[in-house]
Amino acid sequence: MTTASIEQLRAGIRSIPDFPRPGILFRDITPVLSDPVLFRLAIAKFVEECAGKNIQKIAGVDARGFIFGGAIAHELNVGFIPIRKRGKLPFETIVSSYDLEYGTAEIEIHSDAIKPGERVTLIDDLLATGGTAGAAIKLLNQLKAEVVQVQFLVELEDLHGRDVLAPVPVLSILKY
Amino acid sequence: MTTASIEQLRAGIRSIPDFPRPGILFRDITPVLSDPVLFRLAIAKFVEECAGKNIQKIAGVDARGFIFGGAIAHELNVGFIPIRKRGKLPFETIVSSYDLEYGTAEIEIHSDAIKPGERVTLIDDLLATGGTAGAAIKLLNQLKAEVVQVQFLVELEDLHGRDVLAPVPVLSILKY
Repeated sequence: MTTASIEQLRAGIRSIPDFPRPGILFRDITPVLSDPVLFRLAIAKFVEECAGKNIQKIAGVDARGFIFGGAIAHELNVGFIPIRKRGKLPFETIVSSYDLEYGTAEIEIHSDAIKPGERVTLIDDLLATGGTAGAAIKLLNQLKAEVVQVQFLVELEDLHGRDVLAPVPVLSILKY
Repeated sequence: MTTASIEQLRAGIRSIPDFPRPGILFRDITPVLSDPVLFRLAIAKFVEECAGKNIQKIAGVDARGFIFGGAIAHELNVGFIPIRKRGKLPFETIVSSYDLEYGTAEIEIHSDAIKPGERVTLIDDLLATGGTAGAAIKLLNQLKAEVVQVQFLVELEDLHGRDVLAPVPVLSILKY
């Protein structure tokens, strides 16, 4: 992918001050989704980073990770595994909790979602502190998946989420 | 799409008794997502029903509608518009509420998501009473979209959601 395409994608991210709370500059990816050229560029870049790695499953985090993850799994011709906020998955699950600024949150995965040794890429839209993605990797590890990499459209480098996710390789398309 | 493929998809739906509450038989679509053959069949069927209709945007309902919607928008080379539970979208929104068994719920859409007259297909995984999809159609209508059709993977016919969504055409792949 060319630098021009990356800059085109970057121009599609809308920065919204004070959301969801005062002092937070929110990176809004919805303009990338609604523009077919940008959406295809983003999916192409995600897919390109999976090439040659024998990825067998795409796991996506509820909810924006589902939008990218579904398209990437389809394009790679592999299955898609949803990782959801607790209480949404109907079958037997395993649960992982992570810290929020105030309190904790829980995500879960179906316990039959991954076969031991399956090579998985985890997808989400944005890497901030790495709390959610870290909890998702923990779930995948518990199911004995081989977590090949975690991919994000946007990485907020100041928050050092990448360090939390090590040693799993982190690939992000746009860095802020 | 052949009857054989439809039956193959149907065999991929897992029925889970007493979820999320006693007495409810939940139709679990996750086995369709995790099997690349079934996932591709489902996306192909969704896409086939959009052909020749000059669809300009795919709108998907939070959260399972995102998995199908993202892949369908990508395949059709059109933009994707998320319709989300209230409080998740960062920009200016319009809100619609709908009745639940106990109380009400609210969903919203970015007010700049659709241009007047744009031809939109709404996607979700499952049609039950039609409450959520009805509220989503209301939002799209408020933005002056032309809602061409609503598509579901699964329709629970006993609940007559289709009648709630009329006159918008409802296309479902599997009926129960």
